[in-house]
Amino acid sequence: MTQSGWHFLQIPGPTNVPDRVLRAMARPTIDHRGQEFAALTLELIAGLQRVFKTKEPVVIYPGSGSGASEAAYVNTLSAGDRIVVFETGHFAWQWKKIAERLGLRVDYVPGNWRRGASEAELESRLTSDAAHEIKAVVVVHNETSTGVASRIPDLRKAMDRAKHPALLIVDAVSSLASFDYRHDEWGVDVTVCGSQKGLMVPPGLGFCAVSKKARAASNTAKLPRHYFDWDEIIGQNEKGFFPYTPGTNLFYGLHEALAMLDEEGLDNVFARHARHGEATRAAVRAWGLEVVCEDPREYSNSMTAVFMPDGHNADELRRIILDHFNMSLGVGLSKFAGKVFRIGHLGSFNDLMLAGTLAGVEMGLRLAGVPHREGGVLAAMQSLTASLSSSSIAETAQAR
Amino acid sequence: MTQSGWHFLQIPGPTNVPDRVLRAMARPTIDHRGQEFAALTLELIAGLQRVFKTKEPVVIYPGSGSGASEAAYVNTLSAGDRIVVFETGHFAWQWKKIAERLGLRVDYVPGNWRRGASEAELESRLTSDAAHEIKAVVVVHNETSTGVASRIPDLRKAMDRAKHPALLIVDAVSSLASFDYRHDEWGVDVTVCGSQKGLMVPPGLGFCAVSKKARAASNTAKLPRHYFDWDEIIGQNEKGFFPYTPGTNLFYGLHEALAMLDEEGLDNVFARHARHGEATRAAVRAWGLEVVCEDPREYSNSMTAVFMPDGHNADELRRIILDHFNMSLGVGLSKFAGKVFRIGHLGSFNDLMLAGTLAGVEMGLRLAGVPHREGGVLAAMQSLTASLSSSSIAETAQAR
Amino acid sequence: MTQSGWHFLQIPGPTNVPDRVLRAMARPTIDHRGQEFAALTLELIAGLQRVFKTKEPVVIYPGSGSGASEAAYVNTLSAGDRIVVFETGHFAWQWKKIAERLGLRVDYVPGNWRRGASEAELESRLTSDAAHEIKAVVVVHNETSTGVASRIPDLRKAMDRAKHPALLIVDAVSSLASFDYRHDEWGVDVTVCGSQKGLMVPPGLGFCAVSKKARAASNTAKLPRHYFDWDEIIGQNEKGFFPYTPGTNLFYGLHEALAMLDEEGLDNVFARHARHGEATRAAVRAWGLEVVCEDPREYSNSMTAVFMPDGHNADELRRIILDHFNMSLGVGLSKFAGKVFRIGHLGSFNDLMLAGTLAGVEMGLRLAGVPHREGGVLAAMQSLTASLSSSSIAETAQAR
Amino acid sequence: MTQSGWHFLQIPGPTNVPDRVLRAMARPTIDHRGQEFAALTLELIAGLQRVFKTKEPVVIYPGSGSGASEAAYVNTLSAGDRIVVFETGHFAWQWKKIAERLGLRVDYVPGNWRRGASEAELESRLTSDAAHEIKAVVVVHNETSTGVASRIPDLRKAMDRAKHPALLIVDAVSSLASFDYRHDEWGVDVTVCGSQKGLMVPPGLGFCAVSKKARAASNTAKLPRHYFDWDEIIGQNEKGFFPYTPGTNLFYGLHEALAMLDEEGLDNVFARHARHGEATRAAVRAWGLEVVCEDPREYSNSMTAVFMPDGHNADELRRIILDHFNMSLGVGLSKFAGKVFRIGHLGSFNDLMLAGTLAGVEMGLRLAGVPHREGGVLAAMQSLTASLSSSSIAETAQAR
Repeated sequence: MTQSGWHFLQIPGPTNVPDRVLRAMARPTIDHRGQEFAALTLELIAGLQRVFKTKEPVVIYPGSGSGASEAAYVNTLSAGDRIVVFETGHFAWQWKKIAERLGLRVDYVPGNWRRGASEAELESRLTSDAAHEIKAVVVVHNETSTGVASRIPDLRKAMDRAKHPALLIVDAVSSLASFDYRHDEWGVDVTVCGSQKGLMVPPGLGFCAVSKKARAASNTAKLPRHYFDWDEIIGQNEKGFFPYTPGTNLFYGLHEALAMLDEEGLDNVFARHARHGEATRAAVRAWGLEVVCEDPREYSNSMTAVFMPDGHNADELRRIILDHFNMSLGVGLSKFAGKVFRIGHLGSFNDLMLAGTLAGVEMGLRLAGVPHREGGVLAAMQSLTASLSSSSIAETAQAR
Repeated sequence: MTQSGWHFLQIPGPTNVPDRVLRAMARPTIDHRGQEFAALTLELIAGLQRVFKTKEPVVIYPGSGSGASEAAYVNTLSAGDRIVVFETGHFAWQWKKIAERLGLRVDYVPGNWRRGASEAELESRLTSDAAHEIKAVVVVHNETSTGVASRIPDLRKAMDRAKHPALLIVDAVSSLASFDYRHDEWGVDVTVCGSQKGLMVPPGLGFCAVSKKARAASNTAKLPRHYFDWDEIIGQNEKGFFPYTPGTNLFYGLHEALAMLDEEGLDNVFARHARHGEATRAAVRAWGLEVVCEDPREYSNSMTAVFMPDGHNADELRRIILDHFNMSLGVGLSKFAGKVFRIGHLGSFNDLMLAGTLAGVEMGLRLAGVPHREGGVLAAMQSLTASLSSSSIAETAQAR
Repeated sequence: MTQSGWHFLQIPGPTNVPDRVLRAMARPTIDHRGQEFAALTLELIAGLQRVFKTKEPVVIYPGSGSGASEAAYVNTLSAGDRIVVFETGHFAWQWKKIAERLGLRVDYVPGNWRRGASEAELESRLTSDAAHEIKAVVVVHNETSTGVASRIPDLRKAMDRAKHPALLIVDAVSSLASFDYRHDEWGVDVTVCGSQKGLMVPPGLGFCAVSKKARAASNTAKLPRHYFDWDEIIGQNEKGFFPYTPGTNLFYGLHEALAMLDEEGLDNVFARHARHGEATRAAVRAWGLEVVCEDPREYSNSMTAVFMPDGHNADELRRIILDHFNMSLGVGLSKFAGKVFRIGHLGSFNDLMLAGTLAGVEMGLRLAGVPHREGGVLAAMQSLTASLSSSSIAETAQAR
Repeated sequence: MTQSGWHFLQIPGPTNVPDRVLRAMARPTIDHRGQEFAALTLELIAGLQRVFKTKEPVVIYPGSGSGASEAAYVNTLSAGDRIVVFETGHFAWQWKKIAERLGLRVDYVPGNWRRGASEAELESRLTSDAAHEIKAVVVVHNETSTGVASRIPDLRKAMDRAKHPALLIVDAVSSLASFDYRHDEWGVDVTVCGSQKGLMVPPGLGFCAVSKKARAASNTAKLPRHYFDWDEIIGQNEKGFFPYTPGTNLFYGLHEALAMLDEEGLDNVFARHARHGEATRAAVRAWGLEVVCEDPREYSNSMTAVFMPDGHNADELRRIILDHFNMSLGVGLSKFAGKVFRIGHLGSFNDLMLAGTLAGVEMGLRLAGVPHREGGVLAAMQSLTASLSSSSIAETAQAR
């Protein structure tokens, strides 16, 4: 079936890449050993530092976020090291799996996939580890499979209370540049991210923000590594270069995307995502469906995972929506397969794109014969307009 | 105010240009006197003939639709010639104005801007013109200022009944490639169009489809002309060339757009516009607002003009919608200034784009304090899903 | 035959459009009645004024340069008016032809196609026109068919000496933004140009720079006009708008191209073209071939027309070069057909592109069996390096 | 210094990316878990198999060629394994370094950087390894730092004669799609490549073609791995998917590049590179300079490394050429730093680009005061035209 008009890419990443970024990527490739490229690299790193909120190095890999996860491990740990991973969903399970492939021992803290990492549990585990065997704690900030956002500052405080020296490794793949994240202030040691979500760039770049403590750990970490090794990259980055050929054209895209984030202002970006998260949940409630996330403190503002009513398959709904409305929604992963669909509302996005997205879901529910109440889009519109006060409308009138 | 995400360009043209067309336009410019260019020209003309439904020449101008209107006159008429123009709205008035600038005498048939050209009136005028002084009849197929679509076949029949030899000149600028149009079958002599509406290309190309009778008229027509002269263009077009430098990169865009129309199939394109026209009118009725077009036989499927309630200014509504929802709506033109806003739902468009568009209008009405009932988007969604039968859903499932 | 690598578009326009301009054109189309577009228009006009070196209006048409020529006539003249056109080549003949199509009487001053317009001849003709019947003088600044650049300031002086009130209309299509041009200072009344040469934009926009005297003439000029009418355009331009849909995406391209001219600096642009003109002529001389232009004061810096030795066909040479070396050269026009080929060295161009261009000609001469001496490229390289003094090399070293 | 026109990116990769590929990359990103993406993946793998000349899996990584090198090791070897690496230049040294970082033991066969790997030396080493301790032999096909192409079939025969079971790992980063390469026929076990050279795509994708024997080795290989692990990727690739987010937009570019290679035909691509290699060497000889490669059987057709005369610095020459002629040449690496410059003539390239490139070098030599004879470009042109027989010229004439 030929589809006219825009494709709505409402998976929770890759997100709809802005046309400015796509065009920037179409610039001719340049010499990665020349001064023009070096200047670009230095600007990118500075821009990423503003977004990660860090003064420490941010390492850029040609690779996926998954590669950056592996980088976090191989640079800081040695075979047989013990780590804690919180089971918050499919991507936490991936972190566990990677660790095990690399020969680490994982304490996998069980979870119901509807709540974030528990600070009480973390404190208790660390306190009981008097020998400081645990070398690192891994938390997925926004669990992309569930739409639950763990509260990193609370977890940090728990670690501090336990006076435990473990590294804190955070997966910010689907939260960075969508809602509040502060690498330095929150005392994160390695923050892992990818280009294709809040950063609005196509997939192909992975990032590690690296604390001083993490770099120190890399001096003794014994896992074999070359491609992901921080030292050589950070060293050459000082002058704007890389030890191997970097992803030139994705760099162009990232440069444009960082400029767009600067133009909008990170706080405005966060406010926008918050409005859209709230409006989406208003729609889900109006439909009479259930959001996966149980704790309002942990609602994700970048995406929303929704349970299907019993007896209805999420993938059939997604298929109908894709075929009829030219929209891709996120699949339910692992134990949520067929039971959950996920709505991405992150990246380059606005109120009318959200209205179209939710209309696609509402019409899909109807076509698929899924029991629901009408009025989700209406509820979302009420939510969106409620947050625009009449004073703001007057202001924009004057500003013209 | 920085705006994230897609801009919704919902004026009744230029329309949202598909990214495929935009990228095609970014190809390097080639020699307009070379064989590769000649082959492109011949393909374009053949493709345009399929869309205009004609076997006669289609002339391509670097220029606007307005230029193509002037071309229709200067090639077929002489100073002092008498023509009939139906007052259907602002663009009919433009045709009158151009004619007068060129020294033609215009019988301007009055209209209320809410109905199309009257076949009875036309028959009566032509019948009473026993001397055949009237040389041409001008009708705007889809009056872009009002959303009223004149019924060309009925007008043609009226001319035939009157046995009058006047040329029939039709402005199909905002109807071609959006709803049914048949240059040959309907006996139109000159069809005028531009690139930027149903053809999904940026503005910059104007078109004239030219009947044998119109070409014959050009042999005796005495209005001075060079740039718009058909003869030299049609002559050189036979081998794929032009008498002056053609708009190479817009040609690339047009080539891609014609390919897209072929892929979707013109009948499917028309059905899509019909669904969207209907859904839009359902929304307007649900809001309790009034559509400009009075006669359901003349509803436009490419755009809808809507009256504002008394005491409310359409431009203030449009400003609020642009500022808050990143959407451009069409302005009220001439006597409709401030009183009417226009929603374009033509070109590269789909159900979710329409839902977003109507959500923007509904939220704008609320923010602007315009009296209305909620539920327009809901009504539109009901209209859209009603036209997707359960059988069609099953079919697509099987087709995978 | 599949061709790898860049196509060398070395006709004297359209020129090789810079990738920056092509990408700029791929931006989504916006509302031509909105504030963002109005701001763009105002910037474009200001930028064009800097390039034309005028404080007077510059009118932008969706159209070719040929359309802008027609505009120069219809806005300033009336049927039966007498004008002087200098026969400098094919494009001068086009001006004559357009004039005649519009009902003007043309005094066509004969020329040998190897020299520019003669100031003595002009002075004599104007002086003998005591009744001031002659309303306009038309000169092609750079005759694109011959590579001869008429000396406009000298012609202006001749008009001044004759104290004749005729308008001076200049075709700067292939000179503007390539070598020195000064609309105001030189007292030109209408300067005509197109987008596709020195301005580095694809074809599709035509320009008229309009003096106060030309505007005054338009008040009494009686040729019928609408599309090309200056008054309405200049009036609406004041706020950044147009009376009909402008060529939005070509505007984006022009905006980028004007930025590039600003970055390089017009004087540097002119110096670059001068170096390339000189190096090209050095190559032609080294081959033992003859440049069309007879008078060194009138050498064109934007292109060079070259005579073929007797008994050899320029089009066969051009075909061989296109087939084997992926380069388009300019065809010989009218009486030069088959006898002349033209090398464009204008627009976005540099030393290595010129070297490749001349290598293509030199290899083509060999393959085509055209008698010539080797060493044209070598002579050009000597010319190019001679103009880079050792001091300039040291300077760039220090500037790093 | 502002630079007009095309930048000549004549490093030996990344190469000048064709505009078709750049535009393809600017397509909107799609769902990497959808059917449209799966179909793309399957087409890409099939296309890569045609280029690698293999029926075995080709693994695509988001990453650099360097990452694919690491992948070759970690999938086939275990810590402490012994391998043979031939010292052919800087990139051979990189392979040694990576191996050592991963805990492998490297027999580094010394070389003078001017010859390829010696089949005699290989046979002798393998024959003397009766215990079959050597697990793999690593050869860089085209040593990008020297322009020397090792003769893989001869090396394979040496291994066969020695009846040694070691894996043959070949780095084809700067040879694949430029000159002859046959993964299956030559009995290579792992061929490593990147996207940014002969494949004409920007950097960001790495490839491994994997023989059955190499896959079998991966079952027992114990180096820890996750990101680079073949099994999961090859498994998911069967249906067109990936275990982690693939580089969607680089995939679009690769798809277009593979189509271009198909259109030109691999044999024609190879013949083109051979012509350009020969012409480049003719130029170097004419200048009186020395090519690094000593053995004509090992001349590279994708790039040429050239020694600077004593007392002259290659980087100063490169700087002058970049500043004055907008061309990037390859730097001398490691022990060749300052002593060698490298000319890339691979990827999307043609005769006039080569002429421009060589003209840039010749003019640079002059400006830099490097002793040389003039006439390199002339010699290259003679070489290029000599290979175009008069019969081929007649043929193209008839084919039109």
